[in-house]
Amino acid sequence: MTYGTINSMKTKPGRRDEVVAILLSGAEGLRAAGCHLYVVGTAADDDVTVWVSEVWESREHHAASLQLPETQEAISAAMPMLAGEFTSQEVRVQGGVGV
Amino acid sequence: MTYGTINSMKTKPGRRDEVVAILLSGAEGLRAAGCHLYVVGTAADDDVTVWVSEVWESREHHAASLQLPETQEAISAAMPMLAGEFTSQEVRVQGGVGV
Repeated sequence: MTYGTINSMKTKPGRRDEVVAILLSGAEGLRAAGCHLYVVGTAADDDVTVWVSEVWESREHHAASLQLPETQEAISAAMPMLAGEFTSQEVRVQGGVGV
Repeated sequence: MTYGTINSMKTKPGRRDEVVAILLSGAEGLRAAGCHLYVVGTAADDDVTVWVSEVWESREHHAASLQLPETQEAISAAMPMLAGEFTSQEVRVQGGVGV
């Protein structure tokens, strides 16, 4: 069964779009690491919250991706723009459309 | 820009898998209604929470889909198994992988 995560992060005021750009910059490289799906969205009801939904081949593939140099660089680049408020939910993907 | 939703619902104890089956039963029909992505997952940390992430052609396509007879039937079938606790987040999809 594939592994999913649904995460949110709040950015500092005015930095949301820069964080989104960083999150999207390495997106295509994720496929090779076992990522089936990676959706970056901005909250419709505020100007600082970014939501990221992911589906991975396995929990292990996701964990390994966090150690990739490009992931580490993206995290380092985004971190100063984040407000320090996060939510995180792991899910077991059961099926659907496009997955 | 495509429209996304990230929703969760808690089911009554022991009813989660039936709710998941209902949510998946009409999944393929959603494509024709403008659904790009529909991911049904179960929380990894409890036995009652179901997460549904969706990406739609537009907010209007999503709203129209809620009026389809099959959607109404699915909602009616699932409702008695739900605990009445929901979360809902609308997002503006910015991009990613598989979307």
